Amino acid sequence: MRVGDRWYRAMWWDEGAVAFVDQRFLPHRFEIARVTGWRDAAAAIHDMAVRGAPTIGVMAAYGLALAAAQGEDPESAYWALLAARPTAVNLKVGLDAVMPHVSTPGHALDAARAHDDAEVRSAEAIGEAGLGLLGRDARIGTHCNAGWLAAQDWGTALSPIYKAKLKGWSPRVFVDETRPRLQGSRITAWELGAAQVDYTVIADGAAASLLRRKKIDLVITGADRIALNGDVANKIGTYPLALAARANGIPFYVAAPSTTFDLRAESGDAIPIEERDPEEVLAVEGRSEAGDILRLTVTPEGAQVCNPAFDITPAELVTGLITESGVFPAGPDGVLAAARARHPLQTKS
Amino acid sequence: MRVGDRWYRAMWWDEGAVAFVDQRFLPHRFEIARVTGWRDAAAAIHDMAVRGAPTIGVMAAYGLALAAAQGEDPESAYWALLAARPTAVNLKVGLDAVMPHVSTPGHALDAARAHDDAEVRSAEAIGEAGLGLLGRDARIGTHCNAGWLAAQDWGTALSPIYKAKLKGWSPRVFVDETRPRLQGSRITAWELGAAQVDYTVIADGAAASLLRRKKIDLVITGADRIALNGDVANKIGTYPLALAARANGIPFYVAAPSTTFDLRAESGDAIPIEERDPEEVLAVEGRSEAGDILRLTVTPEGAQVCNPAFDITPAELVTGLITESGVFPAGPDGVLAAARARHPLQTKS
Repeated sequence: MRVGDRWYRAMWWDEGAVAFVDQRFLPHRFEIARVTGWRDAAAAIHDMAVRGAPTIGVMAAYGLALAAAQGEDPESAYWALLAARPTAVNLKVGLDAVMPHVSTPGHALDAARAHDDAEVRSAEAIGEAGLGLLGRDARIGTHCNAGWLAAQDWGTALSPIYKAKLKGWSPRVFVDETRPRLQGSRITAWELGAAQVDYTVIADGAAASLLRRKKIDLVITGADRIALNGDVANKIGTYPLALAARANGIPFYVAAPSTTFDLRAESGDAIPIEERDPEEVLAVEGRSEAGDILRLTVTPEGAQVCNPAFDITPAELVTGLITESGVFPAGPDGVLAAARARHPLQTKS
Repeated sequence: MRVGDRWYRAMWWDEGAVAFVDQRFLPHRFEIARVTGWRDAAAAIHDMAVRGAPTIGVMAAYGLALAAAQGEDPESAYWALLAARPTAVNLKVGLDAVMPHVSTPGHALDAARAHDDAEVRSAEAIGEAGLGLLGRDARIGTHCNAGWLAAQDWGTALSPIYKAKLKGWSPRVFVDETRPRLQGSRITAWELGAAQVDYTVIADGAAASLLRRKKIDLVITGADRIALNGDVANKIGTYPLALAARANGIPFYVAAPSTTFDLRAESGDAIPIEERDPEEVLAVEGRSEAGDILRLTVTPEGAQVCNPAFDITPAELVTGLITESGVFPAGPDGVLAAARARHPLQTKS
């Protein structure tokens, strides 16, 4: 996507290193960081300097390619990168794309690049597939960030919105701020603003009342893992959004490339849910008037916290799955149909 | 409630002024402020220096008594205080308790004090009534702050929890942080910590997944206005919590004194929903390492915001109403039964 006068992916190979947009500093600073080894790649994933299921899958792929290039033990790198965040299955898919090639570093890098390019093509195809669900003036609710920074380019949930904007349509997006990490009010808001898409930030608790008042026509979120039965793991707060959409007759779509589907997970119960640092809930980050990024404590000293990073939305609450192969019904039949249609763009190329 | 070695109400009459706990600075500072005129009383309500439906009703009552004592036009004071926040009907109830007496300042003050004392008795009676819904080790979900600071003393939703703690039971409370004003992670957490009640702070979006995983036995929230049909206006984010409780078979109770019932509002549609300053969503407040309370911007410049302060939970999602007269079923029959049983403690005294 364009930022200023340049085009960016969320990350790119840069002469023996991986350069990436450091998402921790948005919207306050647009900063490019670099990792030069697999350990730093794992840390960038764990610390959410890069985030979003497809994007971290690409970082893991490049990280393993770095390990291969530097003569590091690929097994160690594979398992450490896989453990950097447990919920998004894309991490495993990215690693598995590179692992067979680690004995020849050039091939490993080629495999990582191919995975990267495939994710970008998938994200763009998701945009084309989802466009048919939007009217010219659609009011779309979304959660967290499932934009180009989360999927290397274009996005998953936001990709149809960018496609609509390019057609001259007037999508309007209601952005859940998405505590605790505020990926909505920080990153989705920044992305949409940069693309001149109209957006409105709301507290997470406000989405349900807007759905009840019919201020939103449809909801689209991304996913971190979709199980065989169609259950969806996504950012904490997705499940109550799906409940509110269903209670008010509003369609709720999940947009994800095939790399997010995990046919070995029978249901959401088989998906590991990451529990993150309590500090994310105890404190908030933002920009001071002087322009510094600071962290402030909001809770009393000694407060206990429970901080699951994801939740499971049961398949029956999902209206449809927007994939690079088209829109499929939710539930096991849709998942299998999407799986059968996997990677049509790759097989064509 | 006891704080350190003293007992406090959320506010009290103090020789020609109203002294109160300034809730904007909790949990970072426990600070007592004073207002000496009705305009400052209205500002304290509007700025949420005092908050919580019963508490702001008492502040309005004292504010009108101040106007009477100072020879100010009571009509102007009445309407300005009423307009300070539109959703909680307790504001009107408090004002209506004092208005007939404004021609005799001493009587106006007596009426305000009687209203204050009645709210405290109601809050304590809510605790006794709600106790029967808790087991010895109940895990209770709550939203916003409906503790003693919100209801002059004891609280509404938290009152049964304090009663349980006093009996030697071991209630455990899951506290939604309650963006945008963080009344959960700031005020409820502070109250529960001070009372040595176990609590766990969660992001608002996390409550639904805890309900789905059966980590919470029942939910109790307060209310700002309950309509004739049993629809409940309460802090934004209450409605999705009620949806998640219902979807997972978890009881969802609303605790409120009779001053929160508005039999002239046929349904939730007749309840005005306050839209507050976008700044509440654009920014966050907290405590720096140096101990200063600072405000930080989280969103990009120019971000649009929608910030409804309340939502409507339809009566059919409510399991029961905990009032000072006992626990009643939700819906119109329960509302009427609660109304018929109004103020039994007052008529006894």
